[in-house]
Amino acid sequence: MKKYLHTPTEPLEIKANLKTSELLKRMEGISFQGRNLSKAFSIWKEMLEGEVTIFLGLSGALVPGGMQGIVTFLIRNRLIDCLVSTGANLFHDCYESLGRVHWKGTHQVDDVELKKAGIDRIYDTFALEKEFRKTDAYIRDFAYNLDLTQPYGTREFLYLLGEKLSKEMKKEGILTSAYKAKVPIYCPAIGDSSIGIALATHYKKNRFVFDIIKDIEEMALLVMRSKATGVIYIGGGTPKNFIQQTEITVSIMKNADVPGHKYAIQITTDAPHWGGLSGCTFQEAQSWGKIHRKARMVTVYSDATIALPFLVTALGESATDLIKKRKFPVFDWKGKFKIKR
Amino acid sequence: MKKYLHTPTEPLEIKANLKTSELLKRMEGISFQGRNLSKAFSIWKEMLEGEVTIFLGLSGALVPGGMQGIVTFLIRNRLIDCLVSTGANLFHDCYESLGRVHWKGTHQVDDVELKKAGIDRIYDTFALEKEFRKTDAYIRDFAYNLDLTQPYGTREFLYLLGEKLSKEMKKEGILTSAYKAKVPIYCPAIGDSSIGIALATHYKKNRFVFDIIKDIEEMALLVMRSKATGVIYIGGGTPKNFIQQTEITVSIMKNADVPGHKYAIQITTDAPHWGGLSGCTFQEAQSWGKIHRKARMVTVYSDATIALPFLVTALGESATDLIKKRKFPVFDWKGKFKIKR
Amino acid sequence: MKKYLHTPTEPLEIKANLKTSELLKRMEGISFQGRNLSKAFSIWKEMLEGEVTIFLGLSGALVPGGMQGIVTFLIRNRLIDCLVSTGANLFHDCYESLGRVHWKGTHQVDDVELKKAGIDRIYDTFALEKEFRKTDAYIRDFAYNLDLTQPYGTREFLYLLGEKLSKEMKKEGILTSAYKAKVPIYCPAIGDSSIGIALATHYKKNRFVFDIIKDIEEMALLVMRSKATGVIYIGGGTPKNFIQQTEITVSIMKNADVPGHKYAIQITTDAPHWGGLSGCTFQEAQSWGKIHRKARMVTVYSDATIALPFLVTALGESATDLIKKRKFPVFDWKGKFKIKR
Amino acid sequence: MKKYLHTPTEPLEIKANLKTSELLKRMEGISFQGRNLSKAFSIWKEMLEGEVTIFLGLSGALVPGGMQGIVTFLIRNRLIDCLVSTGANLFHDCYESLGRVHWKGTHQVDDVELKKAGIDRIYDTFALEKEFRKTDAYIRDFAYNLDLTQPYGTREFLYLLGEKLSKEMKKEGILTSAYKAKVPIYCPAIGDSSIGIALATHYKKNRFVFDIIKDIEEMALLVMRSKATGVIYIGGGTPKNFIQQTEITVSIMKNADVPGHKYAIQITTDAPHWGGLSGCTFQEAQSWGKIHRKARMVTVYSDATIALPFLVTALGESATDLIKKRKFPVFDWKGKFKIKR
Repeated sequence: MKKYLHTPTEPLEIKANLKTSELLKRMEGISFQGRNLSKAFSIWKEMLEGEVTIFLGLSGALVPGGMQGIVTFLIRNRLIDCLVSTGANLFHDCYESLGRVHWKGTHQVDDVELKKAGIDRIYDTFALEKEFRKTDAYIRDFAYNLDLTQPYGTREFLYLLGEKLSKEMKKEGILTSAYKAKVPIYCPAIGDSSIGIALATHYKKNRFVFDIIKDIEEMALLVMRSKATGVIYIGGGTPKNFIQQTEITVSIMKNADVPGHKYAIQITTDAPHWGGLSGCTFQEAQSWGKIHRKARMVTVYSDATIALPFLVTALGESATDLIKKRKFPVFDWKGKFKIKR
Repeated sequence: MKKYLHTPTEPLEIKANLKTSELLKRMEGISFQGRNLSKAFSIWKEMLEGEVTIFLGLSGALVPGGMQGIVTFLIRNRLIDCLVSTGANLFHDCYESLGRVHWKGTHQVDDVELKKAGIDRIYDTFALEKEFRKTDAYIRDFAYNLDLTQPYGTREFLYLLGEKLSKEMKKEGILTSAYKAKVPIYCPAIGDSSIGIALATHYKKNRFVFDIIKDIEEMALLVMRSKATGVIYIGGGTPKNFIQQTEITVSIMKNADVPGHKYAIQITTDAPHWGGLSGCTFQEAQSWGKIHRKARMVTVYSDATIALPFLVTALGESATDLIKKRKFPVFDWKGKFKIKR
Repeated sequence: MKKYLHTPTEPLEIKANLKTSELLKRMEGISFQGRNLSKAFSIWKEMLEGEVTIFLGLSGALVPGGMQGIVTFLIRNRLIDCLVSTGANLFHDCYESLGRVHWKGTHQVDDVELKKAGIDRIYDTFALEKEFRKTDAYIRDFAYNLDLTQPYGTREFLYLLGEKLSKEMKKEGILTSAYKAKVPIYCPAIGDSSIGIALATHYKKNRFVFDIIKDIEEMALLVMRSKATGVIYIGGGTPKNFIQQTEITVSIMKNADVPGHKYAIQITTDAPHWGGLSGCTFQEAQSWGKIHRKARMVTVYSDATIALPFLVTALGESATDLIKKRKFPVFDWKGKFKIKR
Repeated sequence: MKKYLHTPTEPLEIKANLKTSELLKRMEGISFQGRNLSKAFSIWKEMLEGEVTIFLGLSGALVPGGMQGIVTFLIRNRLIDCLVSTGANLFHDCYESLGRVHWKGTHQVDDVELKKAGIDRIYDTFALEKEFRKTDAYIRDFAYNLDLTQPYGTREFLYLLGEKLSKEMKKEGILTSAYKAKVPIYCPAIGDSSIGIALATHYKKNRFVFDIIKDIEEMALLVMRSKATGVIYIGGGTPKNFIQQTEITVSIMKNADVPGHKYAIQITTDAPHWGGLSGCTFQEAQSWGKIHRKARMVTVYSDATIALPFLVTALGESATDLIKKRKFPVFDWKGKFKIKR
């Protein structure tokens, strides 16, 4: 009995003027997803303390959902060290960095009317199709000024896009801050987005080739050269799997067992019982060796637009010292691949 | 186009030392469920401003989940005026008020082992079965000291239980604070809980009868005598339906159309497409006349143990003045039914 | 390794002219929820073989959803022995048995317009409010012809309603077939439905009292006198908990441990990680002693309107012999409570 | 009122020996997801009647889940004309075609023990890691025998892999049947799978490059040259978006509005309110012009391992004539791109 009953729950008392970080800390004493969100906060802080390379996987319409500033904050303050994202989020990031906006809308609307008005809907958020087309053109122009005789890894491509955007941006965003902080961004399904569309529509004239396999190798090297790794998944999709699979890649490269990611947080609205990778537990990942058998890990079942604002505000408040003292990896992509701290 | 594009979203910027209420206010500018949680905050505050009778429906294992203090806070500060709950939450409230605790556990455990150790599991939370049995006995003793020749409405029963508990409690809770604040509590499925079990096991000796229909009539009177009504649902189940159906009851009683609840918030993890009442939208409820055709309403898809701590902390912070000035209904159950403000 | 790898999956091959029961049988070889549905089929058949009292818990808008005929089939053919339902399903059953219909609609509609047209919406299904009111009146008339000086258990009330309906019905339904087959129906939250509304609106004149505690005692006796019990939950809510809690009730009555339900099937769209009873696993229930520690059990995550048509068609096809030979309990409520087989 | 109430629902009656196609047809008369599954059946048949190019998007662990035979059936009988898949499903298809199996397991297991035994878990299904590695090697050997001086589109790569597999297979599968039926397969995130891993681990020696942009252009041409298009999504992820975005690509290529896909079915366990592309409605897609404003479309909220066996069995039974008479596109990839019927 004592084996099981060691710590009573602590029903939450409401206090005014509580910092978000204090509130989130107290939620450790409750149950269900509230406790899990608090645990995510605690695990993230622990990642910041050690020499851990932190990967963030980003899927879902987070930038249209208003999360650009939060991801930018994570990059700028080095609460993460490497980002893997869907193409759409990077496209929308580019769009917003160039000064364009999304609009507050509603999902209860006549979509055929929206189409007539040239408006694209993302659940409760609107945008103008023609503004997207301008961003297409921007990215196309950028790409076609690169060296078309060679394929580009997405990390390289996005780094150069971030560099260009940094000079022309109206507003700091993910690509620009990642460029400045030397935080690599990978996009394993870059074709599956407006970036891909932008390049495909002019494929007859200009053949731009991405080197996807190079990305995988690079990611494996990042993991291999890290003392320890931690993963944070917002949603599932290709970003989650792409980061998860690094451990398998390393294991095959070294022809040896690998320990797996030591810290793991996921915020998801999926569920394990559908059998897919997006909703699977970190326990399942332990069977594959992707996650360390003694990893600190938590899954928070929540919409990211609720969980992230509180979680990242709390980190921003309470982790100031951790951030200052943090030993984070510095990637040097010029010439030979290096990691310095 | 302008018809649709009136307000740009405002991507959230992370600020340290932001009050929860300020953070929640800012989340109005983002999208998806984060925006909806912010909207819930705004609607709740608007309810507090007018002469609105506020009903709270409570389902799910909220008290074992650590939400006792939050619901108590809502009652004590009159952020709600009437509570409809599952029996389980009231049983667990009684249990905690008597000084007993729930324990932090995990869902990854051998439940057959727990059974052997006499431990009951509620997802990631544990409790001792024998402690529950003591609470059974407490409630049975209380009930059998009532007048067994007459049926009791659950409001009456729970009021008297709150009175008794107030004298013997180790810790303020839902029943005790509701007793003190004269906030009525209804429990439409009271038999479907340990309260029902406690009374059924001794039914041969003592026949205790609840008058469920009386509750419905009382609830209808509450609505009928209110200037306006607002509803807040944590989960669905009988509490949601019981509050929703008051409008139909009133309409039949008066043989006239009724306006419907004017404010409506629900925090749920269910979804509309399964067709059930728990997950249905407030729009659907408008077709029935349960919700006002121009109601301010929002559904937040979130676990309550995440949404409530932030939402109620924010209300506690920012609504101090609203609460002070609030005109809330005072129910007088002695003799004839009355509402004073 | 051999400990884990004993049976290969069998990817499903499409065959034409396969009986539903054959198809469902083959789905045992696949994975995820398809396998679970097949397992539900297998467990239900096993229940029919032994001397098992089978309880069905019914929640969600199943009758408006077109499931009246399926539940009627289960009762008439004694694939179940006791039904616990929400009030709404029984009200809608009464409504349909009297020859009234639901209508095919859509959830993409202006609900305020529906309200004006007197139409109530249940997701994608419509009904006329005034037709519901006639059913209210029918139930009220029935109730007020009962003996108002005594409280009624819901089983008794619904049995008598079934008897009356059987004489006046336009179409066989749940209440009528249960009356004929002597299958008891319990409704723990009967007030939380149009049945409750119907009686509350005339409460001033006629005081009708339900005896909820009596129901709990009766259910406990049913379990106590059964050789073994099996449970089938469509959705969660009060019906699931009401059947689950019988084991606790019996345990307290006998002041002894009870084995728990030996067979357990649930079809749900809820999930365990929200912590509520509706979505909780049967493993969790084992810790409480509600489910036998060696029970055959399965949870199928699916909308019931998909799972039930296939599952019950398959049972109807393949279980003919099982049904013929089945030893089912016969309840005798006249005078003293008895179970015969 | 008549505007809304045109067709009564038809509660389903259980009949034995009903063909799956007949049962599914009858489910048109019920509500919720059962009705939607029936509607999916009806829409798919309508697609087969006209000159429609049918795209299937496949995500989730469908092949490990036992769906290989079903997808193979769809390809072989030309119930679909183009497949877009995650890499994992194609890897697992290759694995099974080579005679290897998945194993029936359980999600309630010690994953650290599985790891020790060299077993990988996919929810309730097991497989041997070392068998996966052999499949890695098989794919690597295949790839490194291609012309490494040029990039390959995934369609081309998978076609050639299907060709090789066809000669060496132990069992017909997706890649082999697609090769034979000349059904193109695209894999927009091919790197995000064991196929990518297999090539990345030897990247230093052999640089294999995929041409993702070429795929997008090809897909756009397929759409452009089709009389009409229909889409079927099992899950969301990159396959859904990749097919959806073809309309945007075509629109930009032609610098003109496009009609959008005319038929649309999705089977998903996601929900719209999270804001992501995987769970978004076809209505939302209409605002973007991806779906025709008068498209016949339905979303079925269900696990695919339940929905697909019934749906495809029903199609196999009832669509024999439709299939025989069907005018399907024949793609000719040799030299110049052509579509013949």
